[in-house]
Amino acid sequence: MTAEDQPRPLPKLSVIAREAGVSVATVSKALNGRSDVSAHTRRLVAEVLERRGYPRRRLKPARGSLVDVMLQGLDSVYALAILGGVEDAAWRLGVDVVVSTAARSTKNGQPPPAWLDRIGARDSAGALLVRTSPTATQRAWLADQGIPAVLVDPRRTPPRGVPVVAAANLAGARAATEHLIGLGHERIAIVTGRPGVPCAEERLAGYRAAMAGAGLPVDPRWEMCGYFQPKIALQVTRDLLAELPEPPTAVFACSDTMAVGVCQALAERGLRVPGDVSVVGFDDSLAAMYTVPGLTTVRQPWSELGGAALSALLSGLPPERLEVPTTLVVRGSTAPA
Amino acid sequence: MTAEDQPRPLPKLSVIAREAGVSVATVSKALNGRSDVSAHTRRLVAEVLERRGYPRRRLKPARGSLVDVMLQGLDSVYALAILGGVEDAAWRLGVDVVVSTAARSTKNGQPPPAWLDRIGARDSAGALLVRTSPTATQRAWLADQGIPAVLVDPRRTPPRGVPVVAAANLAGARAATEHLIGLGHERIAIVTGRPGVPCAEERLAGYRAAMAGAGLPVDPRWEMCGYFQPKIALQVTRDLLAELPEPPTAVFACSDTMAVGVCQALAERGLRVPGDVSVVGFDDSLAAMYTVPGLTTVRQPWSELGGAALSALLSGLPPERLEVPTTLVVRGSTAPA
Repeated sequence: MTAEDQPRPLPKLSVIAREAGVSVATVSKALNGRSDVSAHTRRLVAEVLERRGYPRRRLKPARGSLVDVMLQGLDSVYALAILGGVEDAAWRLGVDVVVSTAARSTKNGQPPPAWLDRIGARDSAGALLVRTSPTATQRAWLADQGIPAVLVDPRRTPPRGVPVVAAANLAGARAATEHLIGLGHERIAIVTGRPGVPCAEERLAGYRAAMAGAGLPVDPRWEMCGYFQPKIALQVTRDLLAELPEPPTAVFACSDTMAVGVCQALAERGLRVPGDVSVVGFDDSLAAMYTVPGLTTVRQPWSELGGAALSALLSGLPPERLEVPTTLVVRGSTAPA
Repeated sequence: MTAEDQPRPLPKLSVIAREAGVSVATVSKALNGRSDVSAHTRRLVAEVLERRGYPRRRLKPARGSLVDVMLQGLDSVYALAILGGVEDAAWRLGVDVVVSTAARSTKNGQPPPAWLDRIGARDSAGALLVRTSPTATQRAWLADQGIPAVLVDPRRTPPRGVPVVAAANLAGARAATEHLIGLGHERIAIVTGRPGVPCAEERLAGYRAAMAGAGLPVDPRWEMCGYFQPKIALQVTRDLLAELPEPPTAVFACSDTMAVGVCQALAERGLRVPGDVSVVGFDDSLAAMYTVPGLTTVRQPWSELGGAALSALLSGLPPERLEVPTTLVVRGSTAPA
């Protein structure tokens, strides 16, 4: 047994209490997850415990304590899956989930100001912001109130210091592209999402990494911007097919619905999927299951994202960035070159 | 100006307070929606106000007060639409929505016991039970705590005295059948849902009412039970077509996904929709939009159901039964006989 392994005496609760500026009773309550300790105080105590080397165990959330989920909207299967993951994890962790949406009140995807008042008033144990981004002022306010926040699948580059939970977009896109390379494709095009959106940038980076890793050159014209819009994906693929004498033999679309647009453009020119051109999507949404042939795609771990985000939020010390793995789902839209 | 129009003097707050057994300050707080008045007390005060002819104005819910939604599961577009309606109404009414699901913990669609402890502890302003039904004990507990509850689209016959908000299933089914009758169909079959489920019984009653209203006899073999299962709908339609020398010229399926099963059975026998047989569904779900031809169906007002249920819950005196109208959506699957 080395010195490292010797159990160190725990700091006394009175020491913790003095340092946190609260009573011993309050420290004890915070440790035991009593509901009559505010989120702010719980956090204060947690920080001192951490600093004093108190063994890292999760502070129990107060019984019946509430966690807030702010979604961009409740109008997509995506939102449902994320929320399902959060609710399931909340049940296991013994907290309840308050659901709100941003789209109604703000156009730029920020939580509405009134929402902050409300979560402050009810002593929220923390906030998950799904595809919504708080302003700098809102972040400062949350920090001030001691309400931790985690961004889930952010639509804009998150500021430093705000924890993010997202799908492994880069790795997923690389896997999709490598799947095509493994089938012998060399001229592989990509239809990207909206520039500036982190997941779109990461998927483009994953495509480029796979192509570079295989030593395959990329014609800049193969990188088409589809803005996550099926109609734009259709149009840019049309343009590409009209322009290039030797078009790509495979297309990686950065969303399933854009892949449907790509397939339409191919069909217009009499090109078969996967006989003439292989197509891969991203999401594993309903669109991927309804297309004929079924779409090879990258499954987004939506429900797991929700669960991981909640666990990170309640851990007290969420990591700066947490990535949840994606899975390649091979269906009928890809074939050897 | 008649005597009726004379403004009557309002009862003094002290009278209300004495009768409710609370202080004047508490009555005032309840009237002003202060959060330090329990749901039970607010209800008590509301009842006295009502009794004493205090002008009916809605008691403001406490700022930041919470309403609970217990869903069967978060795994369907249906759940998402209901929840979206609730969340939207909650925003307008100034309350927040706590979301929980039942499927994980109980097999029979009852809310889990732990959930009741939690909503009691946090002084819930009320509970919406979507497709879940509380036991008699749970109902008694809710009443005891002064927590109002409203059932939304119940899966079993609700006990008397528990307010219900549901789609106008009977009227919707009647409209669907009358649409077929209006097109000249006389031999109209129905594929019903699961016996004992209120919405399934109501749709069957609507079909029968329309047929009787038009003086059309119903061959008992036309009433097929599909249990809300597409595969069963496929099988019973197959059986019907094999059995009857003169099969129906139209089929009303009590859900869109069962209508898809019906269409498959028709296609197997080379019958065209709507050339040979007209088909109507119920729901206006994604299935109705993806079928070719598009499915004529009855749109369920899912989002409106959620909003209406929340409004009823917070009104303090929800009606015993509130029906939200359905809409007939005519697409390509129905044609003249």
